[in-house]
Amino acid sequence: MDHFRVGIDGGGTRCRAAVAGAEGRILGRGISGAANILTDPETALVHIRLATEAAFQEAGLPVSGLSSATAVLGLAGNNVADAVSFIAARLPFAKAEIVSDVLIALQGALGDRDGAVASLGTGTVYSIRQQGTVSMLGGHGFKVGDLGSGARLGQGLLQEALLAHDGIRPASPLTETVLAEFGHAPAAIIAFAHTAHPADYGRYAPSVFSAAAVGDPVAVDLVRTAARHIDQTLDAIVARDVRTLCLVGGLAPLYRPWLTERPGIEILDPTADALTGAVALAVQRFASDPSPAQMEAAQ
Amino acid sequence: MDHFRVGIDGGGTRCRAAVAGAEGRILGRGISGAANILTDPETALVHIRLATEAAFQEAGLPVSGLSSATAVLGLAGNNVADAVSFIAARLPFAKAEIVSDVLIALQGALGDRDGAVASLGTGTVYSIRQQGTVSMLGGHGFKVGDLGSGARLGQGLLQEALLAHDGIRPASPLTETVLAEFGHAPAAIIAFAHTAHPADYGRYAPSVFSAAAVGDPVAVDLVRTAARHIDQTLDAIVARDVRTLCLVGGLAPLYRPWLTERPGIEILDPTADALTGAVALAVQRFASDPSPAQMEAAQ
Repeated sequence: MDHFRVGIDGGGTRCRAAVAGAEGRILGRGISGAANILTDPETALVHIRLATEAAFQEAGLPVSGLSSATAVLGLAGNNVADAVSFIAARLPFAKAEIVSDVLIALQGALGDRDGAVASLGTGTVYSIRQQGTVSMLGGHGFKVGDLGSGARLGQGLLQEALLAHDGIRPASPLTETVLAEFGHAPAAIIAFAHTAHPADYGRYAPSVFSAAAVGDPVAVDLVRTAARHIDQTLDAIVARDVRTLCLVGGLAPLYRPWLTERPGIEILDPTADALTGAVALAVQRFASDPSPAQMEAAQ
Repeated sequence: MDHFRVGIDGGGTRCRAAVAGAEGRILGRGISGAANILTDPETALVHIRLATEAAFQEAGLPVSGLSSATAVLGLAGNNVADAVSFIAARLPFAKAEIVSDVLIALQGALGDRDGAVASLGTGTVYSIRQQGTVSMLGGHGFKVGDLGSGARLGQGLLQEALLAHDGIRPASPLTETVLAEFGHAPAAIIAFAHTAHPADYGRYAPSVFSAAAVGDPVAVDLVRTAARHIDQTLDAIVARDVRTLCLVGGLAPLYRPWLTERPGIEILDPTADALTGAVALAVQRFASDPSPAQMEAAQ
């Protein structure tokens, strides 16, 4: 019997797992809670196991199969060696590789093609594959990067609401809505910002796009500025002779009408999601692996 | 014997005190450490006492005079009732009033005149006095406000350095200097930002102005954008029929050449600093107070 391949897409809010046969067909999927290997590695390990067990159960497979499975895990924080070695030593799989969450998203979106993927969500990050070599661009987090991200859009909206409250910049229906939500009290917005994580700001992003679509001037300015940042990055990518772009993430469809047209550049719809990308990588990386029975015999 | 007046200018990095006679002439000054009543009220109390004792000592007065002194304390966080009542109940003075740090800066800068004061430092905040009524504008902190502040300038510089590193936006001598300081490692900048307080970002502001003065294009853009924010706020203030402006704070002289000329508007040099403003307010507020001897006799 050949062993199973597992793909993991672990993030700050949830962990997804999928189990597949040696040829890559997904047999079952599972989901659990946060898998942040930097802030809470113990919980991440628990959720990686729970999501995988759920995937095996959905596939009608015995969970004892985990220990002979090979896995690729796409995890943010994969560049922090201490966190990775802590996790790697404690995984329930026969063999596993921990890669960037960006890499599994790229694999899912493009399959094996060359091109670039713009991930436009709470954060922003760009990945490029050229002749099989993957590089990354942008990102760098909310505090000094992630331009055009949902978090930055939301932060910009709260800032504009305060400026409108003070009569420094023009109010709009959207700034009025935000101020009303906070009881027209700047102190309430400041208190929110004091503890807000990027995702908390990001929850305002859809309302910025909705308002921009009906011409709210503050929203239009915010979206135009954010789209200009994304366009600058896409320009830098195209200047590297990339001819295929793929936009993924929750804000991708919202940004499409605001971005510059690029004649001669193919805009690809994503082939699959990051979880499917993790499974595909697991199939590739462990293609020539012996079955668990052979491994035991060799020891 | 009349009792002494004490002015306190307490901030997140240090606490200054001055002691004066009933007519307001400063007799001695003292300085101690941080007095942040929100994050560490116990230490704030210690530093308020130490700075005041140092002021009494410089004046050649016995520190026992504290308990009969009347004081005005200009403290950030004066709008947080719990913090203020905790501090107010534990001060070493016969009587004290806790006011905004912005109010003592306004009193120092303008004396008793009407006008507006722009505080341009690590943060930015604006205060306006019209017919004796003080209002405030802007501020709101680093996260959703403080546009044009030193902290925002420094944050913007690190962001531009990362964009230059990724080839998304043009490099300049200044972005090269910053990248070199961080060993050309984006991860080092991200690590800095992870724990940076506004003052940490603000330390980069002077270098942005220096580079802008010699035409560094990234620095010029950063300063122009920041100056535009300040100009928008000054425009809003002038639209309220304010005719006198005073710029204070460490960045005030650096911003002057970048701000719009406003014919008919008087640009006043600050009369005195915030500490002197606190003393002046203490003299005003407790002008009709009885001496400590009279107070005791009345009890």
